Amino acid sequence: MRLTLPDLRARVQAALTSAGASPGMAANAARALVLAEAQGLGSHGLSRVAQYATHLRNGRVDGSAVARVVRRKGGAIVVDAGEGLAFPACELAVGAAIAAARSHGVAFAGVVRSHHAGVLVDHLRPAAAAGMVGLGFANSPAAMPAAGGRHAIFGTNPVAAIFPRRGADALMVDLSLSEVARGKVAQAAKAGQPIPPGWAVDAQGRPTTDATAALDGAMLPIGAASSPKGAMLALTVELLVTALIGARFGFEASSFFVDAGNRPGIGQAFVVVDPAALAGRDAYLDRVEFLVDEMMKDEGVRLPGARREALRRRAETEGLEVAEALLASWG
Amino acid sequence: MRLTLPDLRARVQAALTSAGASPGMAANAARALVLAEAQGLGSHGLSRVAQYATHLRNGRVDGSAVARVVRRKGGAIVVDAGEGLAFPACELAVGAAIAAARSHGVAFAGVVRSHHAGVLVDHLRPAAAAGMVGLGFANSPAAMPAAGGRHAIFGTNPVAAIFPRRGADALMVDLSLSEVARGKVAQAAKAGQPIPPGWAVDAQGRPTTDATAALDGAMLPIGAASSPKGAMLALTVELLVTALIGARFGFEASSFFVDAGNRPGIGQAFVVVDPAALAGRDAYLDRVEFLVDEMMKDEGVRLPGARREALRRRAETEGLEVAEALLASWG
Repeated sequence: MRLTLPDLRARVQAALTSAGASPGMAANAARALVLAEAQGLGSHGLSRVAQYATHLRNGRVDGSAVARVVRRKGGAIVVDAGEGLAFPACELAVGAAIAAARSHGVAFAGVVRSHHAGVLVDHLRPAAAAGMVGLGFANSPAAMPAAGGRHAIFGTNPVAAIFPRRGADALMVDLSLSEVARGKVAQAAKAGQPIPPGWAVDAQGRPTTDATAALDGAMLPIGAASSPKGAMLALTVELLVTALIGARFGFEASSFFVDAGNRPGIGQAFVVVDPAALAGRDAYLDRVEFLVDEMMKDEGVRLPGARREALRRRAETEGLEVAEALLASWG
Repeated sequence: MRLTLPDLRARVQAALTSAGASPGMAANAARALVLAEAQGLGSHGLSRVAQYATHLRNGRVDGSAVARVVRRKGGAIVVDAGEGLAFPACELAVGAAIAAARSHGVAFAGVVRSHHAGVLVDHLRPAAAAGMVGLGFANSPAAMPAAGGRHAIFGTNPVAAIFPRRGADALMVDLSLSEVARGKVAQAAKAGQPIPPGWAVDAQGRPTTDATAALDGAMLPIGAASSPKGAMLALTVELLVTALIGARFGFEASSFFVDAGNRPGIGQAFVVVDPAALAGRDAYLDRVEFLVDEMMKDEGVRLPGARREALRRRAETEGLEVAEALLASWG
């Protein structure tokens, strides 16, 4: 059935509330999940409602947690998510970072004792709305080995960046550091098809093109078939969002895709920088347009985030088609 | 012939001074180039002396430039390299960022009107020595197209990170965002051999395995054979070190590998974060060791920077073997 986005948010919120989330946490998570779905990012959208609800019911998420700033020095901020859903904590962290960047030019806000961050770049939208450049980093339960290693240590560790433009949608970069999402391997395994080299290793850490063996093994970082660069980037992100701020490593967290397990306690980090303190606001905006013009000289170039924004606008007008079985499954 | 590192530095310094660099600029660049060579990074070591000297003689570098801080607000700093060699400006920027991070927890220092940054992570060594985490970004003359595009817009845009450890060498990540260095394509072309898919495009922007055609085209970002993620990272780095701070884009700069051309005016940026303001210094150091222990459980894992540090130590004791023809070429 077709639902408007506000209707859909209300349903998601109700599902999470009845699973034990506080009204505020549920509203915040519902906003994020529906925004993801509206942008065509189903893997981080409505498909997560049941997962979050199960984690709430099984105590993997504390539904009564209240995110709060626990440390602050100049532009450095630590937010404790309290083992709740990540969304209220990320919102608090980015909001605090924007305020701090206004005073100090730059801010670094970490979120500890956290959970799945959803679509990472969406947390940075308020930074762009405030005219600021933002970077986002997150870890996730272990999925990829270190360079030269065999067992999964790092998460797929997404990286996000947002760059506001003058009178146009912000440029939004949002990618995980794995070569492909694990879902693609699962699809190939189901179809009995091989996977390309460079996607995954088997349980012994050997490169494999056998999709079933890969499901028992680990994913590989981007470009792993030819270089350790992706693994080095994953290590960098892992340290920024754990050791530096006090959150847990990916290898300490149970998978999001199991019902039982620990409170993952993983981390997110956001860097917010005010162009007004560096190049100057107008100079920054002028130069972004100059780069965009150069990029658009080649047919086939699509600006990062453009597809998501087009889908979001359509969904805001037309609503979204949602399977009744899915809605019914939320109770 | 075999030279001690101090002897070698003196010879490089003399070569750059006689090409027009101020004594300070020459000493600073000599230190960086010899450090690169000592770490086994020849492409950023002595092979650059002749290039820098030619740029100094041809006015592509202003040998009398004096790097200075031109803007500062809290933790946000802009350093003007004055169209000189990049090294004094990067040193000034990181030094200022360390001081600012001590007060504000985090700092972002950009370098504008700059030139080739050499081994990017080496600029961050003082941050690690001060107990701080550092990130580095740089652009370079256009070498790679945007995602979906055909002509070169972004540089190979290196990313660096340094994480100090307790009683051990800092972890040092340092990589460019191109799938391979252009030198590898040149080698293949010389040998009349094809290159693997995913390395480069031809002059029309079409993927190619013809090394000669690739030399007329552009390099590709990491993992480009399968995804636009590398190009998105290159875009992110490009904007951080240009529009945000006021430096030039890679497509505005003449190649480093030609004698004539403009003053490139490209940029570098450094983020320095104080763990003491976030997780706390001891907690940070404890957790880094915990991750290193987990990584080292797999045979074959090499910590980032370990090989460079081993080579550097050996060179400090034993000196370096340098071809007399190379030394003679410096005049």
